[in-house]
Amino acid sequence: MKKRITVLGSTGSIGTQTLEVIGNHPGKFELIAITAGKNIDLLIEQAFKYSPLYVVIADETKYRDVYEALSSTPIEVMTGSKSLAEVAGQSDADMVVTAMVGYAGLGPTVEALRAGKDIALANKETLVVAGEYITRLAGQNKSSIIPVDSEHSAIFQCLTGEADNQIEKIILTASGGPFREKTYEQLKNVTKEEALRHPNWCMGDKITIDSATMMNKGLEVIEARWLFNLSSDQIEVIIHPQSVIHSIVQFVDGSMKAQMGMPDMRIPIQYALSYPKRIISDFPRFSFADCPALTFQKPDTMIFRNLELAYDALKKGGNMPCILNAANEIVVEAFLNETVGFLEIPEIIESVMNKMKYIPHPSLEDYSESDHETRRITHELIGN
Amino acid sequence: MKKRITVLGSTGSIGTQTLEVIGNHPGKFELIAITAGKNIDLLIEQAFKYSPLYVVIADETKYRDVYEALSSTPIEVMTGSKSLAEVAGQSDADMVVTAMVGYAGLGPTVEALRAGKDIALANKETLVVAGEYITRLAGQNKSSIIPVDSEHSAIFQCLTGEADNQIEKIILTASGGPFREKTYEQLKNVTKEEALRHPNWCMGDKITIDSATMMNKGLEVIEARWLFNLSSDQIEVIIHPQSVIHSIVQFVDGSMKAQMGMPDMRIPIQYALSYPKRIISDFPRFSFADCPALTFQKPDTMIFRNLELAYDALKKGGNMPCILNAANEIVVEAFLNETVGFLEIPEIIESVMNKMKYIPHPSLEDYSESDHETRRITHELIGN
Repeated sequence: MKKRITVLGSTGSIGTQTLEVIGNHPGKFELIAITAGKNIDLLIEQAFKYSPLYVVIADETKYRDVYEALSSTPIEVMTGSKSLAEVAGQSDADMVVTAMVGYAGLGPTVEALRAGKDIALANKETLVVAGEYITRLAGQNKSSIIPVDSEHSAIFQCLTGEADNQIEKIILTASGGPFREKTYEQLKNVTKEEALRHPNWCMGDKITIDSATMMNKGLEVIEARWLFNLSSDQIEVIIHPQSVIHSIVQFVDGSMKAQMGMPDMRIPIQYALSYPKRIISDFPRFSFADCPALTFQKPDTMIFRNLELAYDALKKGGNMPCILNAANEIVVEAFLNETVGFLEIPEIIESVMNKMKYIPHPSLEDYSESDHETRRITHELIGN
Repeated sequence: MKKRITVLGSTGSIGTQTLEVIGNHPGKFELIAITAGKNIDLLIEQAFKYSPLYVVIADETKYRDVYEALSSTPIEVMTGSKSLAEVAGQSDADMVVTAMVGYAGLGPTVEALRAGKDIALANKETLVVAGEYITRLAGQNKSSIIPVDSEHSAIFQCLTGEADNQIEKIILTASGGPFREKTYEQLKNVTKEEALRHPNWCMGDKITIDSATMMNKGLEVIEARWLFNLSSDQIEVIIHPQSVIHSIVQFVDGSMKAQMGMPDMRIPIQYALSYPKRIISDFPRFSFADCPALTFQKPDTMIFRNLELAYDALKKGGNMPCILNAANEIVVEAFLNETVGFLEIPEIIESVMNKMKYIPHPSLEDYSESDHETRRITHELIGN
């Protein structure tokens, strides 16, 4: 039996690599649907190459172009957020890969879970914003959430066969990004181009900036809390510039397990698709003989304040992680548009967190409102 | 239900630590029997402290002393190799910890397996000498063999929940011992005292010398072949001086899993006893923040020739690993008695391997004879 897979956000970094993995194993996987926000050229190319049953272009103004380009194929082309939700809950698929960027991932993930799909979760914002709601929904619908993020995949892989054993803590590794060695003073005038130059991982713009500010690690801490049912003091972060150890679990007996390898997202993507099986791959192998040293250091939360803000949001709970995430999305966008400086990023996020109304037990609608209101206030603060 | 445990070789390094673990968890483990070769003072002390049902002193000349010392207790004192075999197969125990040193571990392990006991294997020579026979016997009797060696425990822990997944290779880490940085020239005149100064692990004399010569890693390669059903080219060795990563599995998808922690044998011992559960421990925890770097290098098999001899023996198979092991035991003894030099160790072992009659498919009796004959020839070569 082939596993039938839908990829939400197929034109992004994770999306394209997911299609590569699916294309490598035609006997194991069948592509049901692909979706994209705006990038119609790549979406059309992917549709021809991988022949899904459905293609969704979220941007309605681009529907006609996609429709016409694919008119010679049997592929059904759809558009709009309703179609996105429909395809996410589509009965043909066994698993939905959620590879959209940001808050936009929440809605379709909810639809997929309601339809009882397993989720390969690449959209960490889903759990950051609404972790409690999402994990409960998955439980009710007997859906599995398999992480795709390399750190969470590492933890997930280390927990295989350890279901009855207690976790003492987990340690998420962080490359430290391009600014690991910089002082506060030096970070004042770093440019967008410098921030986009990640030393180890090739990823989309948003997550690359989040890596440079360490907000990415902060979001991952919150994601891990929900994926593995841990308290905030059971989750540590350590800087590991080589990105070879992808994360570590420490059990109550003092034993640690780590998952390691090349920094290659195709490995955790393939694992999420094939879990619990592993499939033979020809991805490059890591060689210890070529690696003089693996190093570790504590993150400097005085400089990378986003990490501390994320822990604060996690401890406070309620709608606070949702606020953190929305404020961050807007500020990162502003940084990419060069309207805010690098060091202003955590300052603005913190201001917004202090300004917003705290809701201890938010409903799905509350999340939506908090997200909306946070974006408005953040725009206001930035002055655009 | 308490797990009922017999410890063969209770006065050695692994034996004493095993009793410590058992003593830490009186609600989980019950001690059935302890055995020792000669060290009656410690054996008597252990008997009083841990109250087993049976005590065996292998050396018959020491029986009376032990018997009299324990006459005020209900403990049954036995002696001789027949008693050792009896206690190993004793119906009261669920698990037998085989912590004797060297070839002597084979016989009692066979008895324990024939009686259907699970084995916590700390005597690697058992699998080195007669791996094929032992693994078949375990299979026939539905006995589990849980490794205690830190490297094999690491692999075993990484394979939990991965039964259906194919191993590409395993990488056994080696501290490199006290002579890692030495040149061939410098090794000519190293003393027994220098060889006994292991940088990371506190172990018995025999295994500490084996670490200095890297024969220990060679024996572990052969042990791993049988424990995990691998071919010799699936087993690699890498020098990792910090002994934090205890070994690594690489699966066919390119993902690696490692088990790590403090170099503390109580962790793998406890895991072997409690498997598949993990028990809370207060052993010291490893901290990445305190560890500047984990380093790796290829072993120099020109200098540490024992490692290559072990691979040769493994590839040749039959009685060759048995010959390797027996020759090594005698030569190490001679080195500890200062009758052979450090660099002569592999030379003598290689000569013996070339001299001995090769038996491709040995019976248990053939092993016994090969062991005997090898010891005789090795003594002859050394000239004592």
